[in-house]
Amino acid sequence: MSNSIYTQYPPDLDSQQEAFLIQTVKNWTVEHALTVRPSAAIVPTEFNSGNTLATNAPVTLFPSPFPESCFEQARGLQQIYNELYAAIASDEQWLETVMKELIEVDDFLANLWKIHLDVKREGYVQDMTLGLFRSDYMLHTPEDGPQSLRQVEFNTISSSFGGLSCRVAEMHTHLATYPSPQHPVAYPPHPLFSNSKETRIKTTGRPPVNAAVSTLTAGLAAAHQAYGPSKSSPQLPTCVLFIVQDTERNVFDQLALSSFLHKEHGIPSFRLPTSKITTYTTVASPPTRPLIYTPPTDKSTQYEVTVVYYRALYAPTEYTDAQTWNARHWLERSAAIKCPSILLHLAGSKKVQQVLTSKPPGPDHLKSFLPKQTDSTLESLRSTFAPQYSLSSSDPAVPAEGIKLALDAATAANHVLKPQREGGGNNIYRTNIPAFLKSIPESQWKQYILMELIHPPKDAKNFALRSDGAAALDNVISELGIFGTCLWKKTPGGKTAEILHNTEGGYLLRTKSKESDEGGVAAGFSSLDSVILYKD
Amino acid sequence: MSNSIYTQYPPDLDSQQEAFLIQTVKNWTVEHALTVRPSAAIVPTEFNSGNTLATNAPVTLFPSPFPESCFEQARGLQQIYNELYAAIASDEQWLETVMKELIEVDDFLANLWKIHLDVKREGYVQDMTLGLFRSDYMLHTPEDGPQSLRQVEFNTISSSFGGLSCRVAEMHTHLATYPSPQHPVAYPPHPLFSNSKETRIKTTGRPPVNAAVSTLTAGLAAAHQAYGPSKSSPQLPTCVLFIVQDTERNVFDQLALSSFLHKEHGIPSFRLPTSKITTYTTVASPPTRPLIYTPPTDKSTQYEVTVVYYRALYAPTEYTDAQTWNARHWLERSAAIKCPSILLHLAGSKKVQQVLTSKPPGPDHLKSFLPKQTDSTLESLRSTFAPQYSLSSSDPAVPAEGIKLALDAATAANHVLKPQREGGGNNIYRTNIPAFLKSIPESQWKQYILMELIHPPKDAKNFALRSDGAAALDNVISELGIFGTCLWKKTPGGKTAEILHNTEGGYLLRTKSKESDEGGVAAGFSSLDSVILYKD
Repeated sequence: MSNSIYTQYPPDLDSQQEAFLIQTVKNWTVEHALTVRPSAAIVPTEFNSGNTLATNAPVTLFPSPFPESCFEQARGLQQIYNELYAAIASDEQWLETVMKELIEVDDFLANLWKIHLDVKREGYVQDMTLGLFRSDYMLHTPEDGPQSLRQVEFNTISSSFGGLSCRVAEMHTHLATYPSPQHPVAYPPHPLFSNSKETRIKTTGRPPVNAAVSTLTAGLAAAHQAYGPSKSSPQLPTCVLFIVQDTERNVFDQLALSSFLHKEHGIPSFRLPTSKITTYTTVASPPTRPLIYTPPTDKSTQYEVTVVYYRALYAPTEYTDAQTWNARHWLERSAAIKCPSILLHLAGSKKVQQVLTSKPPGPDHLKSFLPKQTDSTLESLRSTFAPQYSLSSSDPAVPAEGIKLALDAATAANHVLKPQREGGGNNIYRTNIPAFLKSIPESQWKQYILMELIHPPKDAKNFALRSDGAAALDNVISELGIFGTCLWKKTPGGKTAEILHNTEGGYLLRTKSKESDEGGVAAGFSSLDSVILYKD
Repeated sequence: MSNSIYTQYPPDLDSQQEAFLIQTVKNWTVEHALTVRPSAAIVPTEFNSGNTLATNAPVTLFPSPFPESCFEQARGLQQIYNELYAAIASDEQWLETVMKELIEVDDFLANLWKIHLDVKREGYVQDMTLGLFRSDYMLHTPEDGPQSLRQVEFNTISSSFGGLSCRVAEMHTHLATYPSPQHPVAYPPHPLFSNSKETRIKTTGRPPVNAAVSTLTAGLAAAHQAYGPSKSSPQLPTCVLFIVQDTERNVFDQLALSSFLHKEHGIPSFRLPTSKITTYTTVASPPTRPLIYTPPTDKSTQYEVTVVYYRALYAPTEYTDAQTWNARHWLERSAAIKCPSILLHLAGSKKVQQVLTSKPPGPDHLKSFLPKQTDSTLESLRSTFAPQYSLSSSDPAVPAEGIKLALDAATAANHVLKPQREGGGNNIYRTNIPAFLKSIPESQWKQYILMELIHPPKDAKNFALRSDGAAALDNVISELGIFGTCLWKKTPGGKTAEILHNTEGGYLLRTKSKESDEGGVAAGFSSLDSVILYKD
């Protein structure tokens, strides 16, 4: 069943239908701010010097099929994942053990860790942490077994596209139902839209409603409320602060959250580029250290920041000078609730993801972080882990297996070698792995993780409209992200988390064109997408 | 009072405030689709070949002050104006008398008239007409008298900017009230925003809510309902058809109406470029002649058009070939309700506006078109007419006065000479008028109307942000448009209108930079604006 769904999708378009659909999407995207600022590769800076232009975000013209059971499993696991990462970020000692080797070789992680230690020495004044998470999966579709979810990444900082992904789901719904679901003018009839004569596929006919904006915003609002009244004397009005990149093209995704935060929760927020953090904020004196924001336009009205929401400072490339590191330290030591704290940022490392796959006879980390969850819940969570292996021979959990799999051409053929460092270079694929490892000193092997390849549905296709207006039908690979939020309080003196707010809601489907390369699969251009669910 | 309001507005901005305000406006406009497609002068076609880009509509950074009494007067008159133009468009004989001379010299008007006569000969099959109107005024501010409204134009076809003007009012309201009306972060304090220490100006502190979209859409919905069930056999689903230009940059203004029409009234609409009218519509056989629209993408589903809404075909330059005239005729003879009919289109001519100014001892057209209105209402309406004069010596109403005023340099100095033809060339200003008239044959004088100059507040200033991202503080002139809708039925065999729907709601303020030229005032670049009302 599932294979025929992918081979017979999307529906064929004649040239008139394609032109009409593309024109409709170009208008809909701008009308509903499903937009980005165009890159200089699309419009040279001389024609966009004031950064005034906008263009459609890259989007698929159709939603992509996705099995309902896997979608619901991913949703069902999200609150458990939230709890797991809250627990990890609260257990400093465990994190240190896991990260220790990496911190020795990775300046970025080392600097983050140092900030944590400095603030710890001074004494943290905020015991709450907020996570706005996105857990990303691919649909593993082996030729000889059932489809299943495989986690690609768990994002603990700057989880993006919640704002725009809601709009993509709305757009695909509009296209599938306007002016009527029986006769949409933009889409030809197709069983997945429940409007063709063929009725053997069970589907809802349109994407599920996407609650990402309300979910993420409710998380920010919960932290804002939990912060409590101003700690300043006299008391100040309070706000949320969005830390953003100085040159951000994905601004409308972020504005969807800040606008909703004000409209639905009455909470003001301000955008602060990373280069201006120390100019427009101050950390007031001990003991409470409130973070004070002074708008550049109105120095007479100061705000106390309840939540620092990072939509920047997640990647090593952003820390170009000591000033930026200083700013991160500045914010970390303040009383504002950080989304995320340094420890939560570090918990999102690939290394943590790999260590979590350990199971008896090795240490059962899942069980110890989630003592109240049933074995079947833990098994469902574990089933989403792609098998992955450390190449560090000092790793007590699975010392030799990774190296063995990587050096044997036969087993390497089903794996990818990933650098553990953040922003640390390219992946090595399949049979290139043994030769690559032999070309570098063995002492560097521990900087890599070996991961079993995920096999997405091989016949999946979709049309994508790029931000430069070009559209094409391609073989594609999709990645499903589920959004969740978690607010917790570290138990006094302890290493566990008291959960105050834990929700799941909203999704992102990101679809990339599949371009073959020698190694296997290289990510091409990526589009925002939505799902159309089918029953297996 | 009023003078000081203009001299002390808008508030001063330091460079940080200006940069912040401009950035906020650039983001807000795209987030809320207060956008247009950029012209090729802004982005060369090679970088926008798919017409994918968008940019902010030209907007003022601040709302402009406007006296509340004049604003309310304009609103109060709109339904009377609606009724007046319904009556004019229903009195074919009167219109013919007024237009006769012009039709002889103006091919555009002659061709429109010919279509009307052709359809009349065949027999009209639709006795209802819809008007979506906009009455445009300037604030006449003589040095020696009170401010008053002076009508510039009454638009009976393609009255635009209802969609975007609602968003400008929302944007200025956001800027004046975020995060709080007492301390907006984007605007410095100012008495007109009711948040400064100075309290002598009575103002609401923000623009009034703009109901243009709901008003115009309700007009379309009323006509759609009044059309009744499908006249086809078998019956077809019904729709509204937006006739649009093939290359339209103001598309998001139009989409605001079609989206609201579907969302609030459940009525589907389609966009049809003028070049495709005869390709995708047919007029079914007599006697009922329903207009059938076949979407290019789905030939199996036909729609019957209830309302033809022209957002194109208003200007002579659009009729580039016989095919376009044929398309206009095609639509006019169909059973769809036209917004507007040919007669209503013609009723919007400058010539009609001029003839309406006639009063006793000349013919009192106002009184005969609006027999049920009180003298004081008619006087209020008449007070908005700028004095204007025919230069036709055969005009029985005011034969000689216009020529006398135009040839005398002393009186010409307070007038503008306007060509009566649609799209008929440039205006001649002030003391250039006598020499100009003497340079052309007297037989051509009747092609012009002499109008007394309107004196807008001379100290008005505002910041404007252009679509290319440039912003500047300029002396400005504003034009207030009030939207109204009217649906009527021609009385059987008669020349009067039975009004079925008559509403007022929503406004447009269009603000132009004032650039001196030798003749007087030339319109510079024009921005969308909103009003902030003050009491005189």
